[in-house]
Amino acid sequence: MKKKVGVLLSGCGVFDGSEIHEAVLTLLFLDRLGVEIVCMAPDIPQAHVVNHLTQEEMKETRNVLLESARIARGEIKNLKDVKSANLDALIIPGGFGAAKNLSEFAFKGPGGAVNLDVSRLLDDMLSDRKPIGALCIAPATVGMALKDHSPTLTVGTHEETIQALESMGVKHKTCMADEIVFDEKNRIVTTPAYMIGPGIKDVAQGIEKLVEKIVSMI
Amino acid sequence: MKKKVGVLLSGCGVFDGSEIHEAVLTLLFLDRLGVEIVCMAPDIPQAHVVNHLTQEEMKETRNVLLESARIARGEIKNLKDVKSANLDALIIPGGFGAAKNLSEFAFKGPGGAVNLDVSRLLDDMLSDRKPIGALCIAPATVGMALKDHSPTLTVGTHEETIQALESMGVKHKTCMADEIVFDEKNRIVTTPAYMIGPGIKDVAQGIEKLVEKIVSMI
Repeated sequence: MKKKVGVLLSGCGVFDGSEIHEAVLTLLFLDRLGVEIVCMAPDIPQAHVVNHLTQEEMKETRNVLLESARIARGEIKNLKDVKSANLDALIIPGGFGAAKNLSEFAFKGPGGAVNLDVSRLLDDMLSDRKPIGALCIAPATVGMALKDHSPTLTVGTHEETIQALESMGVKHKTCMADEIVFDEKNRIVTTPAYMIGPGIKDVAQGIEKLVEKIVSMI
Repeated sequence: MKKKVGVLLSGCGVFDGSEIHEAVLTLLFLDRLGVEIVCMAPDIPQAHVVNHLTQEEMKETRNVLLESARIARGEIKNLKDVKSANLDALIIPGGFGAAKNLSEFAFKGPGGAVNLDVSRLLDDMLSDRKPIGALCIAPATVGMALKDHSPTLTVGTHEETIQALESMGVKHKTCMADEIVFDEKNRIVTTPAYMIGPGIKDVAQGIEKLVEKIVSMI
């Protein structure tokens, strides 16, 4: 039986969805380890659509599941239909979508809500002692969802973001893009990826370590 | 002086734009070799927009440059402003966008046109003896643009596509996803990528070989 790892996407593009490089590198390293990949995303409207050339908001609406399907080449499940029992581990790539569509962290900070299906799956994975990985800004959403467990996470070096997480009871540890932070108690692995960068070869190093750690824990 | 390699994108998503995995892997392998990457795309409407879950056409319009900017994290030039003199080599990732937005091959076969800025840049790169790489279905557009030079290319094993290219004077050579075809005379390197696949780890092998070959020729 192949190990099954879920990849939770949040759209397609760093400013309003999943960070594309981080998502693709996660898929590459998982595939190289011979695991079965289960891509998923919530079937909800994006919080907004951003012009990736100007970073201005566009007068458009897009759907998180449909845009995520671009990264997954159509092989993707509705998050609603995925249970912890279907997976051995879960990884959430970054990009602002992870903090705009999977939670409201980017807009409302610690006061925002987490998407109910996201928090349901994260809660269940934690209770079932299944490893959770999160990249870039995605640890912020994981931290919000699992704050009662005081997880230890990294989100890079942005002071305001770190303070917002610490105000919720999250323990923050700074590390570089080629490193990972491992919360042994909660079985959570994080890496700052493009929160630090600077380039794709740099974030690839941390993502490869994260994927290897997650798969080794199954 | 760093080597400068252009990456010509055609949108963001396998069915109506650049194949995302192929584009990101191209960027990864280029960055690992320490070259400067110049992403570019034409500032034109996409031929159409495809729902990547159902593969049905959507009633939407999107712009090739803006969608490509998602893959390039905003660091992208208008193809119109890029000249052969600015580059040491050029690589075109696949995805249907390469044969829908950069040319009309996917809709009209050999009778279709090539985008004028695409054919201008390809012609100039060839005249300047600068290496050209193309992945997946992108070699079809390269073949159309440069048919007078009878290039030798691969586009996988799809018989109809191969025949369409041969009818234009292109020489076709079949190879697997972990291999490349090298046209020494024209300095063109191609790999079938997802025309054969099947998975991301498989296409990564051919793409890495292509990128190494292209950069070694500069």
